Amino acid sequence: MTKLNCDMGESFGIYRAGNDEEIMPLIDVANVACGFHASDPNHIRKTVELAKKNNVKVGAHPSFPDLQGFGRREMKMSKLEIKNNIMYQVGALKAFLDEMEMPLNHIKPHGALYVMASTDEEMSRAIADAVEPFDVEIFGMANTAHEKVYKNERGLNFISEFYADLDYDKNGKLVLAKGKNSLYDSDLSTKRTLRAIKEKKVKTIDGSDIDVGCDTICVHSDTPNAVEIITKLKNAINEL
Amino acid sequence: MTKLNCDMGESFGIYRAGNDEEIMPLIDVANVACGFHASDPNHIRKTVELAKKNNVKVGAHPSFPDLQGFGRREMKMSKLEIKNNIMYQVGALKAFLDEMEMPLNHIKPHGALYVMASTDEEMSRAIADAVEPFDVEIFGMANTAHEKVYKNERGLNFISEFYADLDYDKNGKLVLAKGKNSLYDSDLSTKRTLRAIKEKKVKTIDGSDIDVGCDTICVHSDTPNAVEIITKLKNAINEL
Amino acid sequence: MTKLNCDMGESFGIYRAGNDEEIMPLIDVANVACGFHASDPNHIRKTVELAKKNNVKVGAHPSFPDLQGFGRREMKMSKLEIKNNIMYQVGALKAFLDEMEMPLNHIKPHGALYVMASTDEEMSRAIADAVEPFDVEIFGMANTAHEKVYKNERGLNFISEFYADLDYDKNGKLVLAKGKNSLYDSDLSTKRTLRAIKEKKVKTIDGSDIDVGCDTICVHSDTPNAVEIITKLKNAINEL
Amino acid sequence: MTKLNCDMGESFGIYRAGNDEEIMPLIDVANVACGFHASDPNHIRKTVELAKKNNVKVGAHPSFPDLQGFGRREMKMSKLEIKNNIMYQVGALKAFLDEMEMPLNHIKPHGALYVMASTDEEMSRAIADAVEPFDVEIFGMANTAHEKVYKNERGLNFISEFYADLDYDKNGKLVLAKGKNSLYDSDLSTKRTLRAIKEKKVKTIDGSDIDVGCDTICVHSDTPNAVEIITKLKNAINEL
Repeated sequence: MTKLNCDMGESFGIYRAGNDEEIMPLIDVANVACGFHASDPNHIRKTVELAKKNNVKVGAHPSFPDLQGFGRREMKMSKLEIKNNIMYQVGALKAFLDEMEMPLNHIKPHGALYVMASTDEEMSRAIADAVEPFDVEIFGMANTAHEKVYKNERGLNFISEFYADLDYDKNGKLVLAKGKNSLYDSDLSTKRTLRAIKEKKVKTIDGSDIDVGCDTICVHSDTPNAVEIITKLKNAINEL
Repeated sequence: MTKLNCDMGESFGIYRAGNDEEIMPLIDVANVACGFHASDPNHIRKTVELAKKNNVKVGAHPSFPDLQGFGRREMKMSKLEIKNNIMYQVGALKAFLDEMEMPLNHIKPHGALYVMASTDEEMSRAIADAVEPFDVEIFGMANTAHEKVYKNERGLNFISEFYADLDYDKNGKLVLAKGKNSLYDSDLSTKRTLRAIKEKKVKTIDGSDIDVGCDTICVHSDTPNAVEIITKLKNAINEL
Repeated sequence: MTKLNCDMGESFGIYRAGNDEEIMPLIDVANVACGFHASDPNHIRKTVELAKKNNVKVGAHPSFPDLQGFGRREMKMSKLEIKNNIMYQVGALKAFLDEMEMPLNHIKPHGALYVMASTDEEMSRAIADAVEPFDVEIFGMANTAHEKVYKNERGLNFISEFYADLDYDKNGKLVLAKGKNSLYDSDLSTKRTLRAIKEKKVKTIDGSDIDVGCDTICVHSDTPNAVEIITKLKNAINEL
Repeated sequence: MTKLNCDMGESFGIYRAGNDEEIMPLIDVANVACGFHASDPNHIRKTVELAKKNNVKVGAHPSFPDLQGFGRREMKMSKLEIKNNIMYQVGALKAFLDEMEMPLNHIKPHGALYVMASTDEEMSRAIADAVEPFDVEIFGMANTAHEKVYKNERGLNFISEFYADLDYDKNGKLVLAKGKNSLYDSDLSTKRTLRAIKEKKVKTIDGSDIDVGCDTICVHSDTPNAVEIITKLKNAINEL
């Protein structure tokens, strides 16, 4: 059965983001923020504990160092800087996983780091450099520089994602709504996802069809109707 | 033979602190900054690589989250906040050690966190909580809350430090020179250290003698004449 | 008529805190976060614009440099460090006020900086040092080190605050609920405030009465029922 | 006589950058770091005091928010984000200038913000938006988007800079040595600068001549032989 993954633990200090308590029981895999775009050591603990309680697998969700911009602003860093910044964040998360005797399931870069790497092979190589030492799955998008580098060039355990609550453009790039807090139609989301699972296709904002991968389905905890979207998706997938 | 430990990798971004290249070959154990009082992911890599090249053991040197104050300003955090902040930093460092197949040798809290815990048992307990999951040595000062909590209460692998380049007050507390960049007399340092090794005593700034532990000797890389101090110390210890 | 002041603009990046849009029209004076415990340059602009639109006076709400702890964790900084950190924040806010041709109305320290200074005269002196160059009102608590230093020693334009949604202990110190997100009874708040205005007294958590000042009334935008509390208060004050 | 400007106050916390004590007496105008790529409230005070003592004019040297990268890494921010981030920093500096009764002389963006804007008109417009409310000189490079936007489009008080210690490429773009700590030949620097003053030309790394502006000459305090370069330059200019 296709697994649901979700970005989790994106609160910071007194600030809350996402309805983690309600969403965690609904998902299979959590991409946990590591403190560079969101979260802090206290929220990392809470999130890992919540995942453990719900038997949810945990992966790292590292980002550019940009708390003010939530990791959504492009930055130009050297390959080694990117590798080091990712390793730092993954290691920080792993300390909490180790304590709770949970394995690190995967790594999934966040925000601008993820999106830039989908068209920038050098950046995907920097990410691959950071993933290799941890020897875990790497999440990304099929038919992009992600797949080309992670899977074809480097032979990493590449897991392709389908985005249930974001639109695609005709080049297969995600349309990242900045400061994203608009609802996404939950029926449309389910319909698109079921098609992605069966046909590996999605209709873009330009109206054309493109090929997508769908080893796992990504939903966002900060979409206002995330719980509704995920619940419908889960039910639909269970009936497959 | 008594081992020399030194705070290393305290550069940050373009800023340099300490003559790591010259000091690393002279020491046995490096306390490596983890990004909260000093360092960043790039300097962590460089420092761990330099340690590996020189067969120096690496421990984590976590701090309060205070880059502006170099971790030397007291902060009031809850026990769990302290535990989480330490674990985050140690985990971040450990990612680089794991990649280079080096073990984490120990944990040594930095600056105000270290000094406060020497008289604050609750803070020492918070540190012990963070150290336990890593199951490594914890550095601290004998005859203080460090030893009482780490060793007596918790049975951790406590390693007592003697400070070769800092003065003690009559309560055994270190006199932390803020913004410390004054020379320390290298002959005096050697003399005091040899006495500490043999007699477990040091003369305080008040003129009285106090008991000290000396499982390992700490020297600071940011003392301007650090290389001179360490070279003399090393020679003197070798002749014991 | 006694003026209502409220901490505003405490959002940060994608994170939202407080219902500023609903609260701004209800208050007279806004204490605007300056980026050290909350806010960033973008939220400062939005908040100052919102205040201008609602004819609300703007003061600066500077803090210890502690975004992770929302400025609620005690820190030990030198007097000059405190002065400099406050001046930096006030100046940053003032740039936006100057552009919009609004005067800086006052300075009100935030969180731990405010509470510590209420019993620590040296800290109140550091704050006074920072306020003097701006030549504006300074908010604080009557019968504490605030009043003693700001008003009696330094002759600053001291404005005493009564807290409508926080409890006092018998020493007149505020009981700061950490991570505060509990409701405060709006009728009780109104009743306590009216008594403070008329009698300059409040009942403490210990059951005793203490003297309070009430030149202005402070309400918090992050109390979940803030809009309800403020609306009732405002109506009650208008009827006086 | 052509004025010398220099980036000053780029220390941070315990870290030192540049020999400000020796350089300040040699220059006419200081570009003072504002805390986003370097400096902090304490170093801002020290730097402004040092400038005042030496009768050196002070301008603001704002940056992208990137302490780890010293503001030298490109970031993608919206025009309004750039404006707000610059205004915040300039205001922060201005608080210290106001206290010491010194005017703000100019604004000069730092690092990647400066270099990107030299070819990106939209970024230059964002900078112009931030400069306008302060009504001061704006430093930049002639024959680039700086001059086109600041001077031609917006009618700001544009001051063109010649870089005495950096190389130019054939497009007139500065060759920013990352982590720059190499010497620059002081005789070559003087020779190039005198030619720039007289002929408004400089030879690029490609060997061709390009046109440059030279209303003011910029030298960097972090070039290791900065004092030597500046002293020779100053003497040569005095003899013109």
